[in-house]
Amino acid sequence: MPKIKVGLVQMSCTANKEDNLKKAIAKVKEAAADGAQIICLQELFTSLYFCDVEEYDNFKLAEPVPGPSSEAMSRTAKELGVVIIASLFEKRTEGIYHNTTAVLDADGTYLGKYRKMHIPDDPSYYEKFYFTPGDLGYKVFKTKFATIGVLICWDQWYPEAARITSLMGAEILFYPTAIGWHHTQDDETNSEQYNAWQTIQRSHAVANGLHVVSVNRVGLEQNGDMKFWGGSFVANPLGTLIYKASHDKEEVKVVEIDTSKTDSYRTHWPFLRDRRIDSYQPITKRFIDQE
Amino acid sequence: MPKIKVGLVQMSCTANKEDNLKKAIAKVKEAAADGAQIICLQELFTSLYFCDVEEYDNFKLAEPVPGPSSEAMSRTAKELGVVIIASLFEKRTEGIYHNTTAVLDADGTYLGKYRKMHIPDDPSYYEKFYFTPGDLGYKVFKTKFATIGVLICWDQWYPEAARITSLMGAEILFYPTAIGWHHTQDDETNSEQYNAWQTIQRSHAVANGLHVVSVNRVGLEQNGDMKFWGGSFVANPLGTLIYKASHDKEEVKVVEIDTSKTDSYRTHWPFLRDRRIDSYQPITKRFIDQE
Repeated sequence: MPKIKVGLVQMSCTANKEDNLKKAIAKVKEAAADGAQIICLQELFTSLYFCDVEEYDNFKLAEPVPGPSSEAMSRTAKELGVVIIASLFEKRTEGIYHNTTAVLDADGTYLGKYRKMHIPDDPSYYEKFYFTPGDLGYKVFKTKFATIGVLICWDQWYPEAARITSLMGAEILFYPTAIGWHHTQDDETNSEQYNAWQTIQRSHAVANGLHVVSVNRVGLEQNGDMKFWGGSFVANPLGTLIYKASHDKEEVKVVEIDTSKTDSYRTHWPFLRDRRIDSYQPITKRFIDQE
Repeated sequence: MPKIKVGLVQMSCTANKEDNLKKAIAKVKEAAADGAQIICLQELFTSLYFCDVEEYDNFKLAEPVPGPSSEAMSRTAKELGVVIIASLFEKRTEGIYHNTTAVLDADGTYLGKYRKMHIPDDPSYYEKFYFTPGDLGYKVFKTKFATIGVLICWDQWYPEAARITSLMGAEILFYPTAIGWHHTQDDETNSEQYNAWQTIQRSHAVANGLHVVSVNRVGLEQNGDMKFWGGSFVANPLGTLIYKASHDKEEVKVVEIDTSKTDSYRTHWPFLRDRRIDSYQPITKRFIDQE
């Protein structure tokens, strides 16, 4: 199935979990009606981005995975015959919570989950308070339409994560994400940050010779202090953008990806052939002290 | 010495090795006169890019490193009080040749060499015929002005090389390089290729929170069949270009880099803090077969 239609759902959220879930399902249906086969939702689409504060009550937003929200998505996937990539707040057990993405196959089958490996902690992004770092390692999912890799937000800054997921056979890398601009920042800073974010992900497409799909949250949250910057995109294996969403509004977009060209990309620029795997062991170090 | 002036010498070459060396020295002097402290020459600046053919006579272009060309650069470095990064064709012994970069300190001291680890082989870039893959691993050099990392051309496509060199303490990454457009390509292809090349290197700046300096060959070679695309650049730790050379002409440029800001970049976007080094072992595999 070389030509695959991927659907990107870039949306805004409210404090009402049920509303967010309904909205997401409506938008998944919209993407499916437009021909999408693999549909990716943004990070933590059932809630506001609650990690701007360290608030114990927010743990109540979590649920098992699989659980109610993934099951709702599973029913939707089956009904529409589409794959759904659903980023959720997972309660694994008392006191262990993860930032987790479930993958539902086109017949509704729960294919498994990926737990975010790299957890940020910055002002307004206090994720280390909520999320235990993932312990499932990197994952690929053999869906009806393609073998896909899924990583989550902060993972996107790590070439190692993209590389390993690609080497596991991912044909497309998906990044559900939630990142934005604080209202105190100027336009130049905003632009530089967005470009850095886009650049690092486009580079994963280049380094690994595959398409990258990044789906970001949009809209104002935190009483207007935070503008999630949208700008979801699809990059081809040379890092060229074949779609980029706006920074200001919700968008449901279907983009066709021709994975039959992947081998051509990878033989014309044969980076994978020439990797010096004998030399990469030091990458498992935190820092390589000299002398 | 947080503020460092780096000099980029983007030049064209001829078949006359002595002329190329003289020209390079003249341009190094020009950069030094403009305040440059660390000056980087493009890949294999003493010759044409000879790897477009597999021709035994071309091995005669090689020399020991250190050897005559690195010694000429050493004298120049001492005379001017500048660091020089000099990419050379190294004859190590009969039948073992490398694509090697020598680093000369500001007092003329030969600080050592890096041997290109990743060797390409594509139509018009038959490097595997000439160059034995590097066996020194990744290297940093403690120069008078900064600890620098040096990688060479094809290495630039590998996030692993940039990461390991950065973890070794590089404050700036330098890439002497030689890449161009074949005359049969159309403008869209050319643009996409240049952008991929720039993107992957800018991503190393982002991932590792340091400045990247890439110095590329310019000019027509191979009877006009190959246009080396110049476009040398400096990217800051957010991947923003603070200089980009033209695609058409020789340029000597001095750019100030403020490495005192590196810690601020790295603490504001603390990617190095959150690396999941427990999970990166699979990166040492060629491919990770499933089942």
